[in-house]
Amino acid sequence: MRIVDLIRRKRDGHELTREEIEFIVRGYTEASFPDYQMSAWLMAVLLRGMSGQEIAILTEAMLHSGISLDWSKLPGKKVDKHSTGGVGDKTSLILAPIAAAGGLLVPMISGRGLGHTGGTLDKLESIPGFNVNLAPDKMGSVLSQCGMALVGQTEQIVPADKKMYALRDVTGTVESPALICASIMSKKLAEGIDALVLDVKTGSGAFMKKEADAVHLAELMVDTGTRMGKRMVALITDMDQPLGMYVGNALEVVECIEVLQGRGPADLRDLSVELAAWMFYLGERTPSVEEGRKLAQQTIADGSAFEKFCEVTCLQGGNPEALRDIQKLPAARNQREVRSKHDGHVQAMDCEQVGIASLVLGGGREKKEDAIDPAVGIVLHKKVGDQVAEGEPICTLHFNSDARLAEAESLIYSSYRIGSSAGKPGKLIRQVIGGQMEKSEARKTRQSR
Amino acid sequence: MRIVDLIRRKRDGHELTREEIEFIVRGYTEASFPDYQMSAWLMAVLLRGMSGQEIAILTEAMLHSGISLDWSKLPGKKVDKHSTGGVGDKTSLILAPIAAAGGLLVPMISGRGLGHTGGTLDKLESIPGFNVNLAPDKMGSVLSQCGMALVGQTEQIVPADKKMYALRDVTGTVESPALICASIMSKKLAEGIDALVLDVKTGSGAFMKKEADAVHLAELMVDTGTRMGKRMVALITDMDQPLGMYVGNALEVVECIEVLQGRGPADLRDLSVELAAWMFYLGERTPSVEEGRKLAQQTIADGSAFEKFCEVTCLQGGNPEALRDIQKLPAARNQREVRSKHDGHVQAMDCEQVGIASLVLGGGREKKEDAIDPAVGIVLHKKVGDQVAEGEPICTLHFNSDARLAEAESLIYSSYRIGSSAGKPGKLIRQVIGGQMEKSEARKTRQSR
Repeated sequence: MRIVDLIRRKRDGHELTREEIEFIVRGYTEASFPDYQMSAWLMAVLLRGMSGQEIAILTEAMLHSGISLDWSKLPGKKVDKHSTGGVGDKTSLILAPIAAAGGLLVPMISGRGLGHTGGTLDKLESIPGFNVNLAPDKMGSVLSQCGMALVGQTEQIVPADKKMYALRDVTGTVESPALICASIMSKKLAEGIDALVLDVKTGSGAFMKKEADAVHLAELMVDTGTRMGKRMVALITDMDQPLGMYVGNALEVVECIEVLQGRGPADLRDLSVELAAWMFYLGERTPSVEEGRKLAQQTIADGSAFEKFCEVTCLQGGNPEALRDIQKLPAARNQREVRSKHDGHVQAMDCEQVGIASLVLGGGREKKEDAIDPAVGIVLHKKVGDQVAEGEPICTLHFNSDARLAEAESLIYSSYRIGSSAGKPGKLIRQVIGGQMEKSEARKTRQSR
Repeated sequence: MRIVDLIRRKRDGHELTREEIEFIVRGYTEASFPDYQMSAWLMAVLLRGMSGQEIAILTEAMLHSGISLDWSKLPGKKVDKHSTGGVGDKTSLILAPIAAAGGLLVPMISGRGLGHTGGTLDKLESIPGFNVNLAPDKMGSVLSQCGMALVGQTEQIVPADKKMYALRDVTGTVESPALICASIMSKKLAEGIDALVLDVKTGSGAFMKKEADAVHLAELMVDTGTRMGKRMVALITDMDQPLGMYVGNALEVVECIEVLQGRGPADLRDLSVELAAWMFYLGERTPSVEEGRKLAQQTIADGSAFEKFCEVTCLQGGNPEALRDIQKLPAARNQREVRSKHDGHVQAMDCEQVGIASLVLGGGREKKEDAIDPAVGIVLHKKVGDQVAEGEPICTLHFNSDARLAEAESLIYSSYRIGSSAGKPGKLIRQVIGGQMEKSEARKTRQSR
């Protein structure tokens, strides 16, 4: 088998076989052919696409490039959630404790923020002492003790993805739904889970601005997971404005604590409960999603979810007192209110610009290597649909350095569209893809609500 | 400007600007970005295509990566012919002497054979002493003395093409009409010519098996040359069977001598005269193509074309006596006749297999580095349309080693399709593209006959 022939076959729109795809992934991981052949193949994949069968094989081949975690000795269903990323998207810190409190095992491997989007690991690390770098055995011990573990990627898991992603990043081949699907799913399936709930964001703050693109990716991921024997659902959710009111690492932890204590904004609470409800349903803790919602709400109402969050924090080296007394979380030295220049209604927000505003305050990364400031960020006072008076604060910037304060303020102003007619926020959950409980090897499922 | 953004732009089907294309060609030639980015861009070009404007800019940028020859001091029009390659395609050795004898200057830079196709340089080198490796000044001196020079590519001409072709060869990006066009035209325009006649082959022995593909490439090349101020024509010609009756290097030189002496097979003679006629017309030696035909035939009839071939051979270090007495050309030690197994008519030939049969006898190259045997080859006795009796020779193999003789014989048998109904050869000249004498900067021309 020669790589140049496989490049040609994909270039000409043919479906590759299992042997061929395994040859490519193994060969590239072992460096038995050079980057310039892989990048040509990746571009051919981006422009020609892949069948569901090919994507599943690619995902499996990437998964097998490294170790997979195995929790079969631990009793109970292992269920996780994955989000494609957004602004103020902090549901992991809420739903993982809910799911664990409700009896599921959640072996969650998360990422860091990049560009306008935040990352779960960065948020967790704003809790003093919290250690996300656990080796698999230590992760297993935390998981068995409290039903959840919140950790970062290790070198041993899906090394093919690390190498392929680095190449895709510099060759214009990131934006392939097939490659995005295989990258996400190979890492998630390496977690040793039985079921996966996907939160696929769409809108001005999401990677997929168009709902149709989000739906397409969701279908590919649900199909891929289903082919590999996992229970899958994808919720297409709104990212036309930030989720919740807080953007920034420690600020988002505060908002998660509020939700886990039965308060917090409705959109964040509702989406967290909905995602947790699907986890309960697919993990067979409840006979329906509706029962899952009730269970999720109950773990909030009885305080067990919040206690679970304190427990995992303690087990991972963090100080749970910082969750009970948020004064112990990092806080920025300065605040500045951004005030509306007009009377009117918030009609829309450019959500990505809010994310970038938080980034320029120091809360995010332009490049992977950048350091972040956990304390800074933005507290929104107005969102889409809200009425606002001239001079009224639309948000408050939390900052330690004023080096780029004017830039952040300007981004906020251009993000808010304020007009005379009333605005209306988009539906929080746009569609539900998959979610059927029947196991199927090779069936493409879609369910719209 | 960042190469990754230019990859993305081409990937998304946008037209690149002059600055962008020049940045890519210069950057790649100077190794200011790596192969893996160039190969992704090349694949995007292959799958997304390029506009006529983009191809002309790419051609020009590649041309400017090295030196261009300049014969402006020599009086008269400089005209060349380029063929996309085939089996038994030896017209260069006939039409260059005809054109020079008729008063044109022919600064011809040719290539070597690869795979099933032969190359002009290999044919010339079968003439004892003939030196194709002339530096530009020596080439100029030969050109000024006899009106023609037959040389190989040098490192100084279009270095971008050499580097790009090597990468295309291993990344499945050879087959892009835009890239093929820019590769051919940049090298031809570096010859310092006023006009160019293209012989674009189509059929079972050509690179473009389908006539529509040949026409498309011809249109791109005519358009590109026209945009760069050159007089252009492309003849779409038949390669469903070998041209002439001889395949192999010294054997083809013999057949060229026959044509230049007023004999030889009709198809080879007719095509050589037709291509030379277009050279005369575009080079303003004759007021019409018809007058060009007459001039070409006259240079054969009066012996001046043959004498020109002897003259250039002498000037380039070859022994012209080998042209006057073909016993002095290399000849194979052994011959074997391949005899028909049936009575009938030759209905069709797989022309590529005839080329490969010559290759396996030692007359061609599988890889660029392979040595070739100038003496070996195939003399055809039957072509499409001919009647044949059982036991009658269809061709004779000329060989020095019998190592792969059986394989060559088997290729010949599977090449000939012999049946009971009469066969009919395809039209030699299928279409004429371009050829208008009005100069035009940016007009796409096409003329069918």
